[in-house]
Amino acid sequence: MEGEIKAIIFGLGEMGKRIAKGVLEKGASIVGAVDVAEGLVGKDLGEVLGLGRTLGVRVTGDAWGLLSKAEADLAIIATASHLEAIRPQLELCIRAGIDVISTCEELAYPHHKHPELSREIDELARRHGATVLGTGINPGFLMDALPIMLTGACQRVEGIKVVRVMDSSKRRPSYQRKIGTGLSPEEFRRMVDGKEITGHVGLAESIAMIASALGWKLDGIVEFPPEPILAERELRTPYATVGPGRVAGLRSAAHGIRGGRPAIALEFVSHAAVEEEYDSISIEGVPRICERIAGGVHGDLGTVGVIVNMIPKVLAAEPGLVTMKDLPLPSAVEDLRPPGPRTPRAGSLQ
Amino acid sequence: MEGEIKAIIFGLGEMGKRIAKGVLEKGASIVGAVDVAEGLVGKDLGEVLGLGRTLGVRVTGDAWGLLSKAEADLAIIATASHLEAIRPQLELCIRAGIDVISTCEELAYPHHKHPELSREIDELARRHGATVLGTGINPGFLMDALPIMLTGACQRVEGIKVVRVMDSSKRRPSYQRKIGTGLSPEEFRRMVDGKEITGHVGLAESIAMIASALGWKLDGIVEFPPEPILAERELRTPYATVGPGRVAGLRSAAHGIRGGRPAIALEFVSHAAVEEEYDSISIEGVPRICERIAGGVHGDLGTVGVIVNMIPKVLAAEPGLVTMKDLPLPSAVEDLRPPGPRTPRAGSLQ
Repeated sequence: MEGEIKAIIFGLGEMGKRIAKGVLEKGASIVGAVDVAEGLVGKDLGEVLGLGRTLGVRVTGDAWGLLSKAEADLAIIATASHLEAIRPQLELCIRAGIDVISTCEELAYPHHKHPELSREIDELARRHGATVLGTGINPGFLMDALPIMLTGACQRVEGIKVVRVMDSSKRRPSYQRKIGTGLSPEEFRRMVDGKEITGHVGLAESIAMIASALGWKLDGIVEFPPEPILAERELRTPYATVGPGRVAGLRSAAHGIRGGRPAIALEFVSHAAVEEEYDSISIEGVPRICERIAGGVHGDLGTVGVIVNMIPKVLAAEPGLVTMKDLPLPSAVEDLRPPGPRTPRAGSLQ
Repeated sequence: MEGEIKAIIFGLGEMGKRIAKGVLEKGASIVGAVDVAEGLVGKDLGEVLGLGRTLGVRVTGDAWGLLSKAEADLAIIATASHLEAIRPQLELCIRAGIDVISTCEELAYPHHKHPELSREIDELARRHGATVLGTGINPGFLMDALPIMLTGACQRVEGIKVVRVMDSSKRRPSYQRKIGTGLSPEEFRRMVDGKEITGHVGLAESIAMIASALGWKLDGIVEFPPEPILAERELRTPYATVGPGRVAGLRSAAHGIRGGRPAIALEFVSHAAVEEEYDSISIEGVPRICERIAGGVHGDLGTVGVIVNMIPKVLAAEPGLVTMKDLPLPSAVEDLRPPGPRTPRAGSLQ
């Protein structure tokens, strides 16, 4: 790879904007921005990101037009959680021969839910010399890549349990709404039945990635419907006041069944009454490993971190559909500019 | 790679024997065993490992003779901590075109202390199509690969602190002797001056690996001489009774200096009065990450785990001298036998 990294960003929602800023801060350039929202199309990306300067890149709704003329190394797709939803954008990028990193939860390990489509994407990517990775803090890191990494010290693994506990009261209103904050238990269940509340998307993907890394053939993956966690007392969040007995948040769980028992158990808990945030991984095996990140890892900050940090690994990888378990060890990237003669940025060499 | 994995083991000390057993348990075969100890040469490996059966492999002191006729995929070198000490064995294996994994601490990241020799090994390995990796639980995993992995979720990293605290009273007598257990403070310092007590070997290697993964240019790496930790009360271990004021163990520390401050600080503590074992990693950055493995990871079990688990990754890697940061995410291996028609082992499919 020569010269500076040129990226295209798909999706300028909250995450897309944060990722775009993260990419720019590390010295890569953004040569195209795609979003169909009326208030965004035609605006300069610098303005959309609130940078106080223009970047000479106008947001466009016409991805095809952009990709047929822009020269880019990489597309970052931050638009949707489900694979079918990003498929047109994904295939467009692949056919243009550029690598893709996406926050799409299902793309983090698509082989379980979409085996046929995964094969097609892989073949298409190989044919066009593109590498495709779905990642983020979760799925992509905390509940799959990190437990996989920890098993690397084990002679034998019998079971893995991963728990992520997040205080939702600190999160954006849109997030709190997504987990049903403030609803009555009945409203919550109705919205779960109607798929309006889905709980955390990615548990099945994380389980399938772990099983694949360990060479485990599972009997199956069971995803439990999200369960409401009710407020025991009145809770005040920036988004809502939750009365006692109403929904403070939810618990999502999924099991990877092996030999009739839940050999991989993942639990995602997020509500407004969490007293201590944490991410924990317990591995039953030889040796036993009990790992815990006190305070947890901030979801939005971590997702931007993972996406940006994986850029050099994806650009260096062989073409095809890859997942976090296939790439070299993740690591923080300080500078996305090519090595060689460069202008030092203030502070960067401190 | 076709057929079963054939390995040669160099060094049948405690670690070498444990690794050999680990390799056999996972269905690989050992086609040669090298050790020069008088009591071992000529014995069947099965007898040396206490398997209660012979393996048809006699321990030999003649590595050259063995390598000139044995057909192997991989050599595991578990003989010494310093690179110069394993160099003859390493070069012999490379010239025979077989991959190498070694517990040699300096090989975990040899580029800092031995830049010239590292280049030579890398070139030789590329020329002969061999991949060479130094690894183990530490260096190789807990104090380098794992912190590197965790930075993968960070947008910015300002500092990394890693602490490993081990209860030495549970360890082998040879280990307790190595850390000075039972000595007077004066005897301890004399043995440190005489390099008879070295503390943990690998801190500088771990720091250099982390810095390289982060793209950090360090001002330098400072290794502090090991400091004695004195017993405050009488301590009884299976190896010794340690009177008050005498040495219960030691603390090894090293700093990676960047911008005049210890941006990477590693501390290894091992003594007979440890109340709680743990491995902790703190990353100052965005987001901040405070990770801790309660109870720590058992050193001997973990080293066997890491060595055996990296076998498939090393066999699949491009030739050359590699380190843990270059290879795909570590993961536990249940079975080293090639996929395809196989005889199920009892229990392995449970």
